[in-house]
Amino acid sequence: MSRHWILAAAVLAFSLAAPAPEAQAQNDLAQALRIIQGKRFVDLTHAFGPDTPVWSGFGQAKFTPAYDPKDKRAYTLKDDGFRTTYYDMVGQYGTHVDPPAHFAEGGITMDEIPLKQMILPLIVLDNTPYQQKDENHAFSVADLKAWEQKHGRIPRGAFVALRTDMSKDFDKNPEHFKRAPFRAWAFETIKFLYEQRGVIATGHESLDTDTTDKMESETYLLQKGHYQIEVMTNLDKVPPKGAVIVVTWPKVKKGLGFPARAFAILP
Amino acid sequence: MSRHWILAAAVLAFSLAAPAPEAQAQNDLAQALRIIQGKRFVDLTHAFGPDTPVWSGFGQAKFTPAYDPKDKRAYTLKDDGFRTTYYDMVGQYGTHVDPPAHFAEGGITMDEIPLKQMILPLIVLDNTPYQQKDENHAFSVADLKAWEQKHGRIPRGAFVALRTDMSKDFDKNPEHFKRAPFRAWAFETIKFLYEQRGVIATGHESLDTDTTDKMESETYLLQKGHYQIEVMTNLDKVPPKGAVIVVTWPKVKKGLGFPARAFAILP
Repeated sequence: MSRHWILAAAVLAFSLAAPAPEAQAQNDLAQALRIIQGKRFVDLTHAFGPDTPVWSGFGQAKFTPAYDPKDKRAYTLKDDGFRTTYYDMVGQYGTHVDPPAHFAEGGITMDEIPLKQMILPLIVLDNTPYQQKDENHAFSVADLKAWEQKHGRIPRGAFVALRTDMSKDFDKNPEHFKRAPFRAWAFETIKFLYEQRGVIATGHESLDTDTTDKMESETYLLQKGHYQIEVMTNLDKVPPKGAVIVVTWPKVKKGLGFPARAFAILP
Repeated sequence: MSRHWILAAAVLAFSLAAPAPEAQAQNDLAQALRIIQGKRFVDLTHAFGPDTPVWSGFGQAKFTPAYDPKDKRAYTLKDDGFRTTYYDMVGQYGTHVDPPAHFAEGGITMDEIPLKQMILPLIVLDNTPYQQKDENHAFSVADLKAWEQKHGRIPRGAFVALRTDMSKDFDKNPEHFKRAPFRAWAFETIKFLYEQRGVIATGHESLDTDTTDKMESETYLLQKGHYQIEVMTNLDKVPPKGAVIVVTWPKVKKGLGFPARAFAILP
């Protein structure tokens, strides 16, 4: 049988089996959902409480049992059928989002970041091999190029996270978690990712983007109109590429930062 | 050409064109992402601020410019390079999640709800036609069955939201938004959805699940181990079926409720 026959038969068989284009367009989202529901999810978010490590310039959160403003009596399951909590905290608490307006006068606030930036291809860069020589190594452009040699070019529109394993101290050793310098990004790498690779957002495990308190990388990326996620976890459980990140936050009106939720869908 | 030949040729053509099963498994998530990124997203979340309507038994949120705990001086872009906010608020503020533990002694808290319950098929039931006769109509089992006659059976594992258009008062007329009775669910409908249709979670536009303050439906569903989303918006912009909801919340340790983010991906 000639190749032409094979092709013709294949087209015919496909056209007999495939639904009409309209129905197909309606069903492709259902198919995408089925694919996603069959995958493993990894939480990239720390659970936070009043004892969670926080940047030294902010205070600890306070959690108080919610009470009736009229008589200050706390609600209880026994007397009221419900219970809940009053929170007193800085926005930059636990795993959180920093929107451009956190560092930029005219930058967009949390409620203005497009929903389409909340589901993205996830790239994980691994700083841990370099930390064996220098435990405060800042991930460099050379490190990034070595990564690309192995895994291919970082795709436009990605979310790029930096694994440093600092997250392992968050619950076990909160004082050590807050130590400076941070294991974090080199300024040139952040600049390269946004300017040369067109990434949408970045994230890391530490309380700051930069290894020092110069805040150079954070200022740069927020002033360029990008958001970042700080204090991420479980990046050691996600492959270098191929995963998808879902990353969202409550819609605080004119919000300058707030706890976020990030998780990975594994390939 | 016989049907056997067509089939054989199709299988051959497909096997020549298709990638190996492994590569295919790795690529199907990328395909799902491409489908999703091509769709329209609709935010189902209100932006919240200090003036946002809240249940009468809780107080308004307070937003304060964040300051250095050492000298109480507020951080400014000019002097510090950044600015942010201290929040003082009840968890059940704005569009929010109620986890089982909000009403149930042994119920799971916000941080324990599985990630897999955060991306679900979205069904939207429309109460507004019934409100033309009775503006406080509670969506009944008969209404639900009429919906199923038209759109088919509600699928197991869905998130079911109730459209009432109350959300339109949230910003424009906050006092009216808080009026009782709420436009909401009939208890029998909530029971039917969870027991007969196996849905995972429900949501609505009002501050409460029930039309009255008996809290019957809310108590039932939270004690059954389900979560709910309150104070949703834009349900008038989502079709009755075929959309997907992405619904997440920050990971408050032992959290009893907190602002959430919900959005729909349209088919």
